[in-house]
Order: sequence, then C-alpha cells, then structure tokens
Amino acid sequence: MYRLLYPMRTYLIVSGRLGEEVNIMAADWVTVLSFRPEIVGVAVSPRRYTHRLIEKYGEFVVAVPSVGMLKDVWIAGTESGPQKLGKMRITLVKSTRVLTPSIKEALANIECKVVDKRTYGDHTLFVGEVVSATHDPRAYPNGEPAPSAAGFLAHVSWSRFVTFRDEIIDAEHEGGE
Amino acid sequence: MYRLLYPMRTYLIVSGRLGEEVNIMAADWVTVLSFRPEIVGVAVSPRRYTHRLIEKYGEFVVAVPSVGMLKDVWIAGTESGPQKLGKMRITLVKSTRVLTPSIKEALANIECKVVDKRTYGDHTLFVGEVVSATHDPRAYPNGEPAPSAAGFLAHVSWSRFVTFRDEIIDAEHEGGE
Repeated sequence: MYRLLYPMRTYLIVSGRLGEEVNIMAADWVTVLSFRPEIVGVAVSPRRYTHRLIEKYGEFVVAVPSVGMLKDVWIAGTESGPQKLGKMRITLVKSTRVLTPSIKEALANIECKVVDKRTYGDHTLFVGEVVSATHDPRAYPNGEPAPSAAGFLAHVSWSRFVTFRDEIIDAEHEGGE
Repeated sequence: MYRLLYPMRTYLIVSGRLGEEVNIMAADWVTVLSFRPEIVGVAVSPRRYTHRLIEKYGEFVVAVPSVGMLKDVWIAGTESGPQKLGKMRITLVKSTRVLTPSIKEALANIECKVVDKRTYGDHTLFVGEVVSATHDPRAYPNGEPAPSAAGFLAHVSWSRFVTFRDEIIDAEHEGGE
C-alpha cells in the first residue's frame, strides 16, 4: 500500500569517510522533519552497509542525482557494499562541514549530523541536522529548484523512473476564483 | 537548505472524525518508514489544528491529490482550521479501517493508526502503521503508479507545483553496459 505514495523522489545517501570506508546507497525514503533547525530523516534497512557506516560515523550526506546519473543510482540501489563504487561514474569530493564526502556530479549535497535514530518496523530512521549544503546553481537558480533545467529524478517502481514536466503551475494564479 | 530536496510530492492529511471535528492539511513532509509492517511518517507543526486532531484520535489518512485538485491543495495548505473545508470541492467519505474519513476525489487514501510520535525541531513526526488503503485503478493500474494517467502533484516552492512527464525511463534497459 506504501506504493500509493509513489512516484517518490530518489536520492543518494553517502556514508563513511574518504580514505577509510565509504558507501553510497539509493534511497527514496527521505523527508524533511523540521524547518528550524533544519532536520531531515532517512529510513535505512539494518541490513545495509550504509546503516553500519552512519551508526559508526554519525554523519550522512543526502545527494540529489539528476536523470543523467540514473545508471549510478541503479547501481547504488541494487548492489551491496562498497565495491560497487568502482562501477559508478561519480567523483567523491570533500564536504564542507562533515567528514563524509559529497558527490561532485550531484545537483546538491546536503550534509547532516545524526541527532537521533529510531527503529520502525524493518528500517531505522536516521534523523540528521543539516549543517551545510552545496548545490549546482543551474539546478537551483536563486536557491529554488528548476525542474526544467535539472532533470530531477523520481522512482515509479523497481527499475522505472520519471522526471518532471517543464511547466510550472502556479496555484495562486490558477483560473477560477 | 532543505529546499534542495524539492520538488517533493504533495499530499493531503485528513484528521478527525466525520460528524465531530475533521480537518485537511497539505503536507510535503511525508515518507515511508518501513516495508513490513508498512509504516509511514508525516511531520506536522504543533501549531496546526491537524496536530491536535491526530493526537486526539490517534489516526490519520494520507490522501494523494491530482493536479485537478490543486485549488483544494492550495486552500488546505494556506488556510487554517476546519472552516476551510467549506471552500474546498472535496467529498469526505468513510474509510475502510479507520474512523477518520477519506477523500473521494483523491487518487488514493492511505489509512494509518499512530504508533509513535517524536518531536524534531519545530515539527512532530507522527508515525502511522498503514492498516488499509483505497485507490483509483486508473492512477495505479496493476497497483503501480501511472504518472501519465494520474497527474501526480509535486511542490516546487510556495505556490509553484509540477507534475511528472509521461515518459518512463527504465534503468535496466538504459543504453550502455
């Protein structure tokens, strides 16, 4: 029944440390939890290597992939363990305020420090305070997302993905009253 | 910085009881938290009337609006309190396993019973086990979302919304290796 919430945006979760151990997984179960301070949550299965790395280092980065990175998203989502990084065409770069790296090719990287974790059913919700972020200004001109330029990715089911239409609908200027 | 996660899907949260007190709010901060059992989470500000109703009745319904319901989404998201229901063109109908009503015009209604709540920053995360759901089979043929038919709605910023492209990209059959 949770499939009725789909399509959901797809993100990449980076965990670990450059030069030590690092991993990337694909995750749809990502949301915002608080505006002030800025807090986000990501649900991760305890069977994931990423789960161990987030627990160990207390940090994660939410990277925003574009449709051009779909192959990397697919590898990150279907293969397990850090050896998959060798198959991916992404570049890990230093983040600004966490030691977990960011993804150079991503549209944005949101740097988080874990402030809580809770188990719900078969997943752990890692709750992270956003301590810094970087973004591609072409995907977020004036800091706001531009669907037409960015190729933001959403997950429909299994291997099926979609992007957004270019057309922006303004609810304040819709016809009628 | 949380805006870098946008566009995010927009949903309607129904709370309360038909014939007693009932409310509808728009929410982007909705995610899945567990596969088995199926658990979802929604972050709600304590200042919202919805917050009081979810606390009181221990239930909520996540309804999936279509682009055709954008005016209702906008009213639900910008006005406060139950009097806004009179301005909305939606029909509240009985749910199947909770006493909180569903929205007849919605593409789907996911019925949840609260199993936990946690405060993170300025919002409360209500965690709900999914106990039942109904959906429009045209929007979810074979139970899977069909972006071309459904007009699924995502929030870009303030009053700006987008829908998805019709084209489905299959990650398993993308060119290359």
